[in-house]
Amino acid sequence: MADNTQKVAIIGSGNIGRSWALLFSSAGFRVCLYDNNPAQLSNVIDHLKGQLDALVTKGLSRGDLSAEQQLQNVTLSNDLATCVKDAVFVMECVSEILDVKLAVFKLADDNLSDGAIMASSTSSMLPSVLSVDLNHRDHFLVAHPTNPPFFARAVELVPAPWTSADVMKRSRDLMVRLGQAPIVMKKEIPGFVLNRMQFAIFSESWRLVRDGIVDVDGLNKAVWSGLGARYAFLGPFEVGHLNATGIEGYLKTYGPMMYRLQSSMGETGPIGGQLAQDIQDALVVHTPLNALNERRRWREMRMAALAKLKQDMDRLDEQEAKEGKVDLLPSDH
Amino acid sequence: MADNTQKVAIIGSGNIGRSWALLFSSAGFRVCLYDNNPAQLSNVIDHLKGQLDALVTKGLSRGDLSAEQQLQNVTLSNDLATCVKDAVFVMECVSEILDVKLAVFKLADDNLSDGAIMASSTSSMLPSVLSVDLNHRDHFLVAHPTNPPFFARAVELVPAPWTSADVMKRSRDLMVRLGQAPIVMKKEIPGFVLNRMQFAIFSESWRLVRDGIVDVDGLNKAVWSGLGARYAFLGPFEVGHLNATGIEGYLKTYGPMMYRLQSSMGETGPIGGQLAQDIQDALVVHTPLNALNERRRWREMRMAALAKLKQDMDRLDEQEAKEGKVDLLPSDH
Repeated sequence: MADNTQKVAIIGSGNIGRSWALLFSSAGFRVCLYDNNPAQLSNVIDHLKGQLDALVTKGLSRGDLSAEQQLQNVTLSNDLATCVKDAVFVMECVSEILDVKLAVFKLADDNLSDGAIMASSTSSMLPSVLSVDLNHRDHFLVAHPTNPPFFARAVELVPAPWTSADVMKRSRDLMVRLGQAPIVMKKEIPGFVLNRMQFAIFSESWRLVRDGIVDVDGLNKAVWSGLGARYAFLGPFEVGHLNATGIEGYLKTYGPMMYRLQSSMGETGPIGGQLAQDIQDALVVHTPLNALNERRRWREMRMAALAKLKQDMDRLDEQEAKEGKVDLLPSDH
Repeated sequence: MADNTQKVAIIGSGNIGRSWALLFSSAGFRVCLYDNNPAQLSNVIDHLKGQLDALVTKGLSRGDLSAEQQLQNVTLSNDLATCVKDAVFVMECVSEILDVKLAVFKLADDNLSDGAIMASSTSSMLPSVLSVDLNHRDHFLVAHPTNPPFFARAVELVPAPWTSADVMKRSRDLMVRLGQAPIVMKKEIPGFVLNRMQFAIFSESWRLVRDGIVDVDGLNKAVWSGLGARYAFLGPFEVGHLNATGIEGYLKTYGPMMYRLQSSMGETGPIGGQLAQDIQDALVVHTPLNALNERRRWREMRMAALAKLKQDMDRLDEQEAKEGKVDLLPSDH
């Protein structure tokens, strides 16, 4: 059961900040949502209410609280110091501009409660760069969510060299409590884990379209109808493990081909320019720029439904295991 | 409506051949399933029946035919020439051994009906290599399914330089009729599209674990809880399109970082050896080698449920569009 006397501070009320607000409030936390722009704050509650109503209507909301209870957990603030005070967790989600983030963390650092944790939602900055000059730098980490954050469970937890093991552990436990899937990294690296894998797949997609092997539609389809249907449930090592008799056997068969192909893939060259425009021309046939928001909602509803599907199937497996009908495989998928 | 007077020949009754048999029979084709090994053929019908029953029980079977009707569409044969005669489509799924495949296609070539198409399910051989000496080489292509073929819809259609455009088009239409998602390639390339992307992501996974950035569990989780939840519904270009205001804007922001990271990823080195063993040690904690089949069934049921989920949500969208509640985005996702 969530402890609703605990307070978290969310700094920045854009899409990421609003998603964190929903996640923390649905788990029963008191959320203080800060923004220095009054215009930005003015429509937050209406926007959250709209999102919650849509989720409830589709049977896809999280946790046991009503939409109203979740909204009551959220307060807005234009005073960062007050917002941070007494918070057990401070989550920064301001613009990806180094100086802006450094200023936020300086102020948070000066007002941080004993033992509280500071995290950045950044996708592009290393925790060591963001925290090197902080007094509480051992209480700092990056907690990078996946877009859209309320609908994808992955959160990368990235330590700076000086982040304490206890802070990593507590952050991990907190993410589990929110229903997220924490990926605990052991060291920082540019792009973290998820974007490095995404960029690897994107680079090869770029080369295949550039070289006229397949068109944009075909490339996308290879992922959503093939690779992605497996990756929705299993990671790359697990796929190999199942596609042969264990990963070792898989790599004995495919490792040399993989190495040969990967070594021959060559340079993408700078990614942008004419080909970027050609790809956009192909994509807007299905999703014109003025339909992006609609398609984003389409994606959110499908990802939420996938999360629910997984949960339902896991529960059914547990039930059948109890009744002795099947053996239960250990899994938190 | 499927035309059940049409016959297809499936050469090889292993897992891939059996999956093709299910797909074609569920679409109403008469299937002749050939194997030169009587022991291999002896349990085919029981095995197909078991699969169909499991699918029906979970509400996940395809098409409108009963399990019994589907089974009645399948006949077994140990005579390749007879099996190929009168077939409109010949699908080869024997071992990945070049000489074995060449011998099969020589015999099929000699017995092929006018206008019939020959396809190989190979994942590793180029269509030009398999068909260079055939009389009907303009009627030859690779049709590479995704494992497990009945549960992942992607099928890569790969032309040799001499494959006719009409054969590619008819093969595409046939796959759509089976409910599969054809990825029509414009040229052959080793690894085709799907495995090249899979190997790109695998190579980066390998480097991240090798360099101690993340452990095997964390790496897998980054995919099944993050990347994969998006890729279940959208391809790599579409994800970028939605994560910014169109792919061009996305690549203006992330293209340089992507290029820089991808250029710095460096060599994997040969893929195998001690690290392969370490990865296996981590995977068998969740999925011991003696539980692989059980985990494969777990995967199949989840992938089938995902396919059904997508279909149900698409139908609901269509319904709501008819009632004027939402605009329908063009999509065959």
